[in-house]
Amino acid sequence: MPAEGEMQALGSELPNIAGDILERVRAKRPRVHCITNAVAQTYTANILLAAGAIPSMTIAPKEVTAFAQRADALLVNLGTFDAERQKASLAAIAAVNKLKKPWVLDPVFIDRSKPRAAFAKKLVAKSPRAIRLNQAEFEALAGAKFSERSLGQCAVKHRTVIGMTGEVDFVRDAKRNAIIDNGHPLMAKVTAMGCAGSAYLAACLSVENDPWLATVAALLVLGVAGEVAAERARGPGSFAIEMVDALHNLDRATLRSKAKVN
Amino acid sequence: MPAEGEMQALGSELPNIAGDILERVRAKRPRVHCITNAVAQTYTANILLAAGAIPSMTIAPKEVTAFAQRADALLVNLGTFDAERQKASLAAIAAVNKLKKPWVLDPVFIDRSKPRAAFAKKLVAKSPRAIRLNQAEFEALAGAKFSERSLGQCAVKHRTVIGMTGEVDFVRDAKRNAIIDNGHPLMAKVTAMGCAGSAYLAACLSVENDPWLATVAALLVLGVAGEVAAERARGPGSFAIEMVDALHNLDRATLRSKAKVN
Amino acid sequence: MPAEGEMQALGSELPNIAGDILERVRAKRPRVHCITNAVAQTYTANILLAAGAIPSMTIAPKEVTAFAQRADALLVNLGTFDAERQKASLAAIAAVNKLKKPWVLDPVFIDRSKPRAAFAKKLVAKSPRAIRLNQAEFEALAGAKFSERSLGQCAVKHRTVIGMTGEVDFVRDAKRNAIIDNGHPLMAKVTAMGCAGSAYLAACLSVENDPWLATVAALLVLGVAGEVAAERARGPGSFAIEMVDALHNLDRATLRSKAKVN
Repeated sequence: MPAEGEMQALGSELPNIAGDILERVRAKRPRVHCITNAVAQTYTANILLAAGAIPSMTIAPKEVTAFAQRADALLVNLGTFDAERQKASLAAIAAVNKLKKPWVLDPVFIDRSKPRAAFAKKLVAKSPRAIRLNQAEFEALAGAKFSERSLGQCAVKHRTVIGMTGEVDFVRDAKRNAIIDNGHPLMAKVTAMGCAGSAYLAACLSVENDPWLATVAALLVLGVAGEVAAERARGPGSFAIEMVDALHNLDRATLRSKAKVN
Repeated sequence: MPAEGEMQALGSELPNIAGDILERVRAKRPRVHCITNAVAQTYTANILLAAGAIPSMTIAPKEVTAFAQRADALLVNLGTFDAERQKASLAAIAAVNKLKKPWVLDPVFIDRSKPRAAFAKKLVAKSPRAIRLNQAEFEALAGAKFSERSLGQCAVKHRTVIGMTGEVDFVRDAKRNAIIDNGHPLMAKVTAMGCAGSAYLAACLSVENDPWLATVAALLVLGVAGEVAAERARGPGSFAIEMVDALHNLDRATLRSKAKVN
Repeated sequence: MPAEGEMQALGSELPNIAGDILERVRAKRPRVHCITNAVAQTYTANILLAAGAIPSMTIAPKEVTAFAQRADALLVNLGTFDAERQKASLAAIAAVNKLKKPWVLDPVFIDRSKPRAAFAKKLVAKSPRAIRLNQAEFEALAGAKFSERSLGQCAVKHRTVIGMTGEVDFVRDAKRNAIIDNGHPLMAKVTAMGCAGSAYLAACLSVENDPWLATVAALLVLGVAGEVAAERARGPGSFAIEMVDALHNLDRATLRSKAKVN
């Protein structure tokens, strides 16, 4: 764990680093293969396109391995939990792990379904570069109430980065913790907002080798874009649209001026 | 059948009752499990979120029963008619019926597919608290041309509430009929508008024990929200978005001033 | 091949013909059955509704033939490549071919998946009235680099119309070539824009017996609608919505004034 002084110094750099990662995604145009739920597919694809990435979504057994191999990053989202998607997830994870490409786990609703929680635990053992979840999902995964301590223990145990989103976002790896105080309540009123955010995180991991920095950047960018979107929105319908525009148009100056991270 | 005087007295109360139900959904935040078609899932989830409800959509055999048990209401929509959804529908209906929780049947396109019509008739025997459909679907279900009489006979026969939507909406149970003259033609130009409305009806049934009142309230709220949305929309694309915002922002005063129901 | 003078004369008529076809779709309200990918279904349905057509999307084995038989045109999109959709595609194509109704092939991502490319080639032999694809997909289908010559050879070989979209759109049959210089870069930043366009092309084929004219009209209308939408959009989120409105509201005068085709 770095000394407190170092953490603060890094904290002040995080908006700049996030701005770099934002631009690197736009420049690289990474392919992100998404095994995600039916409700989230369209919005996820549009968020990735707005961010400069290129989405693909197939789960067909004959081709999912080839798509995962050619992708720069993979998202595995458990929001639709059918047998075909489970098989596709295992095949795609095997493909990207062999090529040492990053993948993100989004264990949607594991707090509400034991079979999903069991499957999520199996996947966590397959070295996701990062896990994005909410507090209820974290507690189902960790088997413990949330605290900064249990979050750290979970990150250490699974040797991954955990991005826990909510009113405040926590990004934790074995050594570092960031707290992001951006975002807007309307983000919770749009279906697939979190799922799409996990896909953007996968894109960020494809351009930044430090997964903790990539996760901080992804959640910071999304939180600031959410605030920009909320300034124009009149409700959750227009907010969802404005969010896509805001992510597409976000610049470093806005990111720096609105970022609240330490 | 109440005397005409009673009906009119009730008619004038309906906008107030609908306002109550609108607010009760927002306060309770009911979980609504939706077995619905792939085209409708995202819009349905966003309409439920905008209304204050919490959607879930899984059809996986291992977990659909658990999701239905924990939900406050269930929607069964036949718009995607595959074997897995049929099994999931039967499992979910069994779960909510056992717990005496309400469920809504939306027999999409049964006028265009005999296997769907046969399955819909099987489901109607499992006591949906309400059925939402359009005129062509009603006629396929009732096996008769629409008239106020055939509508009443169908409601009596199946001991349910029928909400038939169109230029004018009819809400009928064994004793009562309401005619709602709200809404806007653009509602027919957005895919899943009816499906999403049926999901909102399920949410209303979870906060109101009289299913006829809940159905009147749901269709009245949706019709008025549609009128508000149309005032801002420039076409069906922006209308779909404005509808989500309008439902999220609708207040009692607007509901009362615009409601046309008797 | 007509003499150059004839081509230019026709070129100047194309915006008027496209305007006719635009209006004929609105007047006929054709049913378009779409076997399309999960990501594209909602946007495709909304584009068809905005254009005046009536979408259906079922792939269930028990009913896909009946839906295809009653439809005025069929779209087969390979973007979700599962066994059920492959079977549904073959059944639906057989049904419409028997009734001599038009169908469109959209061979999504065949450049990225060999099993898809193989299936696409099988379908091309079943006489699609038109094929809509991008340059990478064309090259995978033709087995050759794109040139005006290879495009013509491919159209001749498969006795179909090829609509290849990109910065500039090419519409080619055995004898004729059109080049359309409309559209906007934001069209590539919205998922399912091409898929939805292919569905609109199917609608146009149902009202115009010359498939080359129908394809020119569809791509011209979409390109001009894209330009109108871009004038109002602030990013890809609002662009997707404005596109639906623009297609719904497009008039002949705008089409004529903005069309760049020869």
